[in-house]
Amino acid sequence: MSRIAYVNGRYLPHRQACVHIEDRGFQFADGVYEVIAVKGGGFVDETPHLARLHRSLGELRIAPPMSDAALKAVMRETVRRNRVVDGIIYIQITRGAAPRDFSFPPGARPSLIMTARTQRPLDPKIIERGVRVVTVPDIRWARPDIKSVALLPNALGKQHAREAGAYEAWQVDRDGNVTEGTSSNAWIVTAKDEIVTRQADHAILNGVTRLGVLKVAGDAGLKLVERPFSVDEAKAAREAFLTSTTNFVVPIVRIDDATVGEGKPGEVARRLRALYTSFALEGVAR
Amino acid sequence: MSRIAYVNGRYLPHRQACVHIEDRGFQFADGVYEVIAVKGGGFVDETPHLARLHRSLGELRIAPPMSDAALKAVMRETVRRNRVVDGIIYIQITRGAAPRDFSFPPGARPSLIMTARTQRPLDPKIIERGVRVVTVPDIRWARPDIKSVALLPNALGKQHAREAGAYEAWQVDRDGNVTEGTSSNAWIVTAKDEIVTRQADHAILNGVTRLGVLKVAGDAGLKLVERPFSVDEAKAAREAFLTSTTNFVVPIVRIDDATVGEGKPGEVARRLRALYTSFALEGVAR
Repeated sequence: MSRIAYVNGRYLPHRQACVHIEDRGFQFADGVYEVIAVKGGGFVDETPHLARLHRSLGELRIAPPMSDAALKAVMRETVRRNRVVDGIIYIQITRGAAPRDFSFPPGARPSLIMTARTQRPLDPKIIERGVRVVTVPDIRWARPDIKSVALLPNALGKQHAREAGAYEAWQVDRDGNVTEGTSSNAWIVTAKDEIVTRQADHAILNGVTRLGVLKVAGDAGLKLVERPFSVDEAKAAREAFLTSTTNFVVPIVRIDDATVGEGKPGEVARRLRALYTSFALEGVAR
Repeated sequence: MSRIAYVNGRYLPHRQACVHIEDRGFQFADGVYEVIAVKGGGFVDETPHLARLHRSLGELRIAPPMSDAALKAVMRETVRRNRVVDGIIYIQITRGAAPRDFSFPPGARPSLIMTARTQRPLDPKIIERGVRVVTVPDIRWARPDIKSVALLPNALGKQHAREAGAYEAWQVDRDGNVTEGTSSNAWIVTAKDEIVTRQADHAILNGVTRLGVLKVAGDAGLKLVERPFSVDEAKAAREAFLTSTTNFVVPIVRIDDATVGEGKPGEVARRLRALYTSFALEGVAR
């Protein structure tokens, strides 16, 4: 658990860390966030995470509450105060607190909140055995490419997965194509050894880990295709896997009640996990 | 402004009213709300508002934080402490605070927040002259029938309306039909004197004022049809109007750049405003 939280200029004991009830993050989901992995005290993929944070803020026309240099300083201080070596930092920015009204408040100052917590590495069994995903209809708004805190449908999807005994839920659009997981991107490997993941348009969040995996796969000379794929294609695929900030690359061995490939983690997923892990750890920002 | 807010069991000065940064309302939009008009110190349509609150909670499987009797007592105390005679009360319930994780936290206690504020009656000019609405694509999630705080698309739509000099934005589905306003329901009156509003399915929030207007219109023997209508049909309609808790019934005289009817408030809208106002004031709960 985060012991010390940064809240609008102050470092507070976690229990006392609060935001105003009229913060627009609480009343309108009018805010954005990032989760960054901390490894060995450094930040994984810090630059692309901050770039995406700026993109999200820009799409919602929320002014950055401080410069990137200041933001990075607060990130480091938050990690230091929580003594996090391996874990995550969570950064949330909202449009700020103002008397409740749907339209943007003219004078509000954006809110900035950070927490950091130690997180144990993924249970090795998860990697060895692979995981199951279940499919759910994608009921989100039209702009999941913006990393907003309007995450209610994602929470409902994840809860559905948990109750089904699955690790994640893959969201499916009205054409029967997988968009992405509730907090991860979705990938398959076809019989032609093509690594397929949906193109980053408005229908998915362009995962930072997704971008990293695309890079290491490209560098390794693997065949990459960014296009939609259907649930049926995924079930019949040679391999499937998911990527996210906290999971890196996790092999999928079952989709709903269908076994993927031979029902055990595939070679491509294992190789990409190794490649991305090296890439991520080499690039940590201190 | 609300001077005293109720927050999880305590009445707090507004400035100090806060929720934990890990409240799921703040991090996941995992909560619901109601706004109820206060007239002469009583609550307008209290029973249907509380019924809808229970429906929203049920759809999200959030346990009610207290009995309705207790909730009503807190509502009255919040109004009393803020000395509100004419205004609104705002009630928000979230799944509670818990270490951040998408799936439902097993042990969290739902949060309950209330604010109340005096609100001046609508400027009579608005009723006399009517208002303009602009149309925007409906980019919300698939379940706007749940009155959740995942209101980011609504906030963006309302802001678009404000910048266009309009009173409200009407959201339009991919078939070209109006779903509803960002915080109001949408109505037209056809050349055949039919009063048309979209049927209450998953695509709209079933407004309490919408239900009240349906009732008074039915009692008055007017012709009612619940069905989708297109933007083109609305622009060519005899009348248009909107309904909401804070607006009651407000005539619309322009949609985008098209003049509705004769460009002034229609008879049906004026009559329904009068009928609903009487109905609402007679039924206030004390």
